[in-house]
Amino acid sequence: MSGPQTPEPALGIQGDAPTGARDEDAADGIQHSHRMLSFSDALLSIIATVMILPVTHTEISPEQFDKSIQKLLATRIAVYLMTFLIVTVAWAAHTRLFQVVGKIDDTLALLNLACMMTITFLPFTFSLMVTFPEVPLGIFLFCMCVITIGAVQSYLLMATVIFLPYVSKVSSWCKGRLVGPQEPPAHSMEFFTFDLHEPLSKERVEAFSDGVYAIVATLLILDICEDNVPDPRDVKEKFHGSLVAALSVYGPHFLAYFGSFATVGLLWFAHHSLFLHIRKATQSMGLLNTLSLAFVGGLPLAYQQTSAFVRQPHDELESVRVSCAIIFLASIFQFAIWTTALLHEGETLQPSARFGGREHAFMFAKLALYPCASLLAFASTCFLSRFSTAIFHLMQIAVPFAFLLLRLLVRLGLALLCAMRGLAQPATQAEEDAHAPLLPAAC
Amino acid sequence: MSGPQTPEPALGIQGDAPTGARDEDAADGIQHSHRMLSFSDALLSIIATVMILPVTHTEISPEQFDKSIQKLLATRIAVYLMTFLIVTVAWAAHTRLFQVVGKIDDTLALLNLACMMTITFLPFTFSLMVTFPEVPLGIFLFCMCVITIGAVQSYLLMATVIFLPYVSKVSSWCKGRLVGPQEPPAHSMEFFTFDLHEPLSKERVEAFSDGVYAIVATLLILDICEDNVPDPRDVKEKFHGSLVAALSVYGPHFLAYFGSFATVGLLWFAHHSLFLHIRKATQSMGLLNTLSLAFVGGLPLAYQQTSAFVRQPHDELESVRVSCAIIFLASIFQFAIWTTALLHEGETLQPSARFGGREHAFMFAKLALYPCASLLAFASTCFLSRFSTAIFHLMQIAVPFAFLLLRLLVRLGLALLCAMRGLAQPATQAEEDAHAPLLPAAC
Repeated sequence: MSGPQTPEPALGIQGDAPTGARDEDAADGIQHSHRMLSFSDALLSIIATVMILPVTHTEISPEQFDKSIQKLLATRIAVYLMTFLIVTVAWAAHTRLFQVVGKIDDTLALLNLACMMTITFLPFTFSLMVTFPEVPLGIFLFCMCVITIGAVQSYLLMATVIFLPYVSKVSSWCKGRLVGPQEPPAHSMEFFTFDLHEPLSKERVEAFSDGVYAIVATLLILDICEDNVPDPRDVKEKFHGSLVAALSVYGPHFLAYFGSFATVGLLWFAHHSLFLHIRKATQSMGLLNTLSLAFVGGLPLAYQQTSAFVRQPHDELESVRVSCAIIFLASIFQFAIWTTALLHEGETLQPSARFGGREHAFMFAKLALYPCASLLAFASTCFLSRFSTAIFHLMQIAVPFAFLLLRLLVRLGLALLCAMRGLAQPATQAEEDAHAPLLPAAC
Repeated sequence: MSGPQTPEPALGIQGDAPTGARDEDAADGIQHSHRMLSFSDALLSIIATVMILPVTHTEISPEQFDKSIQKLLATRIAVYLMTFLIVTVAWAAHTRLFQVVGKIDDTLALLNLACMMTITFLPFTFSLMVTFPEVPLGIFLFCMCVITIGAVQSYLLMATVIFLPYVSKVSSWCKGRLVGPQEPPAHSMEFFTFDLHEPLSKERVEAFSDGVYAIVATLLILDICEDNVPDPRDVKEKFHGSLVAALSVYGPHFLAYFGSFATVGLLWFAHHSLFLHIRKATQSMGLLNTLSLAFVGGLPLAYQQTSAFVRQPHDELESVRVSCAIIFLASIFQFAIWTTALLHEGETLQPSARFGGREHAFMFAKLALYPCASLLAFASTCFLSRFSTAIFHLMQIAVPFAFLLLRLLVRLGLALLCAMRGLAQPATQAEEDAHAPLLPAAC
């Protein structure tokens, strides 16, 4: 049942000195699992977002845009969203598992790698399942993967949580018999606390989100580096040797890339600011975060479409609207994390971000910026449909500057609010508020 | 010179209580930069490895394999290696910068994002420079990128290290005048210690390496998910509706993927074990790590070639040799990190991994496994050139099992060594060694 090395961790009982403990553990083949977890997070976030590639690479030309292409695109988007959710569920199970398994040894690290390899195979089986709904092979492979992952994870759980205490007891009993009486190994039980109702590990939610943001931000550069270097022969023949003219053909691609990177980067920035003020991530916040990330993964699709403006100018209204909708959904779910956190602000938020806290208004503005901007852009395309591209580019340029000046703008806004209130009801308690914290107490 | 928010951090002087300090800092817009750094590491590692894609996607068919393709391939490999080194240098500068800049505010986080966006553009400019050596545009763009990155980074440095102390001094002086005398703000100077000769941050070396390993491990699945789901029409026409037959065409691709993932995963595992025993990473260890990672990035190329076995059976000897060489180089540089660390083992290694330490022999075996296996495979293809594919697959299957059984094998080896020594010179000091630690002291 257990591998050739699982009895090893039993040795970990010896090293208990406060200073040398870490090295002693490492020496015995037991390791704190921090780095393995961040590697797993990086892998899982890449796997979760990988299925957006077939969507972005679906060639849509105005002549061919018939039912079959529409169906193909819809299928691929569905595959992407489902894969994202499935991999996130696998990630959540992994997180739970390693909230229980505090320390690892080499066998567990290798088994974790095997588990990761099986999970990377999930998107493929799922896409097979959807492409051939009538053939049972896809479902069979998918189930095999899930069973393998489950088996490896439950093996990890059993090997460490259920059997290990006994193994270590037996081995220490044997040692006691051979060498002489020792102090009781209460330490080994301490490694593995079993509490499935505790909130998600905030660090791992952050690491997984970071991975998704990083891979999404760079997905378009993958294509650009490969396809958008013009062919020397083409440059000579078509553009009379002018490299600038040849590159200007790819202009929209670069614009799309920078737009995509800026949007993903700023959404990451908002996420980063938000989690800086969060103490604990509850289950519902984790779910909202997943939904937000799923739409963030759709951003390359949005910008792929804006890069197609040149080829199909008639569809630009539609593309701009789709882009605005994706940005809106990605950012509104971030905003929802914040409002959910506010519901239990005593547990989930740092004091400064709560109602009346110093940073409350500022956080609110930071998270509301993208939903408002995208909603505004969407609405204005309805009235000014002829200028939709201009509106979209204006939004892209304006939002980063708004982020830079946000702290200033919020102060100005609050001061204005105060002034208006002060006109309505003359100030009487100005004296008391002089020593109160900065922002909300300004009026 | 300074943005609208840089004076903000001066507020950070207030929060100095040991428990609430973190929240106070966050409230003032100053943040510990941990998460921003790991996000930057993830981005930079993806950018560093992205140029392997044009190499792996170079179509080589036996009929077309002439000088022009060879030249193209050589150019692309050179571009990949140079990009990797350039991005690593940018990463090293970034690491240095944030060893000086301890804490960040929102403006710095946004500037960091802008810096990242410019760095993502480096690979493209470089590849343009190589494709059109006679046109100065590529060099111009490349230099523009480097200048921008340098400007942003030096702005960060100046804004925080050089000007910020003065700004905070002035602001506290003003406060002192307005509110009354306060304790001197010695705290604000403490944030920014300036020591460029200290070793690289071990955490960031690990994070960057993790990113490279993660993206390399999943590079092949990017292709598989997109291209290797067979077309339903093809399945009906060519394979008479048999999905298994259609998939078996792609068999070598899946083998290649699993082989690649396993190799990258195990190299990560060896790296992980190595850095578990390392205390500090010196400059030369960092350089060796970069070289090792550059060859790890070449692994998808190796496995892309093994997946082409079916199409071009005559070239398999060459492919196997290239693969073995890449694996050998990637692993031998890892081994070199270890030997370099041993030269200054007092500073760089944990006690248990030093000469005579408990884990020394085991670490040695772990790091020597891949160089030995690949060298052996390479040598045996010279003698048994007809069975080169079989040898390569045997290596792929044998190495993971060797890793699993390594602890057992090392013990057996040491016991055998002891027994042989014991036969040569009869044991006299057996009594003394009974209480010594396990492995090296076994004889």
